[in-house]
Amino acid sequence: MLVLTESELRRLVPFSPAAVAAVEEGFRQLGGGGVATPPVLRLDFPEANGEIDVKAAHAYAWDSFAVKMSTGFFSNAQRGLPSANGLMVLFSAVTGEPLAVLLDGGYLTTVRTAAAGAVAAKWMAPAAVDTLGVVGTGLQAWFQVQAVLAVRPVQQVAVWGRDAGHAHALADRVAQQAGVPAHVCAGLEELVATSGVVVTATPAKSPLVRGEWLSAGHHVTAIGTDAPDKQELDVAVWARADVAACDVRGQAVQMGDSHHAVAAGVLDPARLVELGDIVSGRQMGRPSPEAITVCDLTGTGIQDTAIARLACQAAREAGVGMDLRP
Amino acid sequence: MLVLTESELRRLVPFSPAAVAAVEEGFRQLGGGGVATPPVLRLDFPEANGEIDVKAAHAYAWDSFAVKMSTGFFSNAQRGLPSANGLMVLFSAVTGEPLAVLLDGGYLTTVRTAAAGAVAAKWMAPAAVDTLGVVGTGLQAWFQVQAVLAVRPVQQVAVWGRDAGHAHALADRVAQQAGVPAHVCAGLEELVATSGVVVTATPAKSPLVRGEWLSAGHHVTAIGTDAPDKQELDVAVWARADVAACDVRGQAVQMGDSHHAVAAGVLDPARLVELGDIVSGRQMGRPSPEAITVCDLTGTGIQDTAIARLACQAAREAGVGMDLRP
Repeated sequence: MLVLTESELRRLVPFSPAAVAAVEEGFRQLGGGGVATPPVLRLDFPEANGEIDVKAAHAYAWDSFAVKMSTGFFSNAQRGLPSANGLMVLFSAVTGEPLAVLLDGGYLTTVRTAAAGAVAAKWMAPAAVDTLGVVGTGLQAWFQVQAVLAVRPVQQVAVWGRDAGHAHALADRVAQQAGVPAHVCAGLEELVATSGVVVTATPAKSPLVRGEWLSAGHHVTAIGTDAPDKQELDVAVWARADVAACDVRGQAVQMGDSHHAVAAGVLDPARLVELGDIVSGRQMGRPSPEAITVCDLTGTGIQDTAIARLACQAAREAGVGMDLRP
Repeated sequence: MLVLTESELRRLVPFSPAAVAAVEEGFRQLGGGGVATPPVLRLDFPEANGEIDVKAAHAYAWDSFAVKMSTGFFSNAQRGLPSANGLMVLFSAVTGEPLAVLLDGGYLTTVRTAAAGAVAAKWMAPAAVDTLGVVGTGLQAWFQVQAVLAVRPVQQVAVWGRDAGHAHALADRVAQQAGVPAHVCAGLEELVATSGVVVTATPAKSPLVRGEWLSAGHHVTAIGTDAPDKQELDVAVWARADVAACDVRGQAVQMGDSHHAVAAGVLDPARLVELGDIVSGRQMGRPSPEAITVCDLTGTGIQDTAIARLACQAAREAGVGMDLRP
């Protein structure tokens, strides 16, 4: 029974090819129908502007599974605290014993979300990316840049954000820490039109990227939309998609970016391909260099289980963490 | 952020008046409508004969709440392991921060279940108990003896079990550790007929206690029935009850002992009084010395939150546990 702190987990599980491979394998299991994902347990704290979500997922082929508890208390900033917090517990799927408590404070969710972006880009983006366009300037935008860089050669990165200061800070970070030339684009249309791959990582509640800005070969991943009232892509983006993909169809059509297009009648939900089916070879992620491809990532439990297993394995190999016996 | 091991928790949270008071206060909150209890998250592991249940409950008046993860892997005995395991996490209801991880291995569930039995006996049993009859010989049977002893003067304890050896072992334990004369009853009818208070703590799937064995003043608590296929009390027990009580009506009529009586048409579910309403004075637990009273305890999340809060408070006061900073 291992207990790992956030600082240990940050050292043990950086965003890395291993993280991408772990999450990709999770999607492969999902695509084969080999994953059980029960409905989320949710509890609201209206008086504190807060909520907790508890998620679990089990791949039958794996000998362990994770339960993730995520809290979001949106008045925490007034107290100088981050709004997101939480932890994961890894259990044996053979004996039910708790194997590890991962006190990650939400960090592993950042990594597994980035890894899903990398998997989408790996299987759907054009082979070479001259410019990667990033919409959004927060932590996940930075991780999504690393995600695409992990799976594609990229010549330069263009950043767009509502706050120019934040946009410049992200461009500087990309140039310095990722070693790829980066600049800020003042216009969103310009950014989309000049970027072969576009990733949106914002909490937007009205569409940012328009379908008319896309051209042959474009790939777009929307990472920010995980609630019915959020939207990053114009429904015309979905209408123009030759391949319209998502992580989990049932969830995407309820709360993902694509659900707006389904509701508007421009996207038949049966056309939505699941990433797991692409990764496992059942569906084509990019049928031709000219295809326009779009992916809607809402987040699913098997990503958490995959990253928790990786963390636990890395900790055992490094001899890190407190090993507790009852 | 406190981490407490099972051995620490066993020392910090014995079955005690404090545990009974904490769980009673939980039921009082429940009775006032001040508790949110979302549906249980459940995941099955058919290949390992296992399951995990995740429960949470929040009393609006309290500044913290627990999430409990309980596993039951019923082939573990073949590996020399207990079938039940699990842990709890206590969170701040103000900021969502995890406050404590309680690696109790299921121990706190034993205590909070015993405490509910004590609350039922406190509010429903006759004032004086000549003989307490216990049906079942497992760990919870021993805790239920302690539960009734905590709230009523008891002259003697009678034990019935399918395994005579186990029954004698429990009687010996009661005599030695609780200091109350105890004997084994060979006949179940004799045990029920001669015990003013009867507690059933078995995994029985067909009724053990019959309604015709009851007489004026009897109180019966069924603690073992937490699934639709389990049953400890004959439906006639419920038909004879002047007060028919349960912990949570919606759950009892789905999976509690009383649900068989409801299904058989001998108990109107509207007659089922909730323990929280008794504890908070809205309903009468024992209207007269002659009344026959019956209580169906299926277990509910606010018991877990109550006991987790008590454990955390006891640990802080005793300076026990590992205090981790990220």
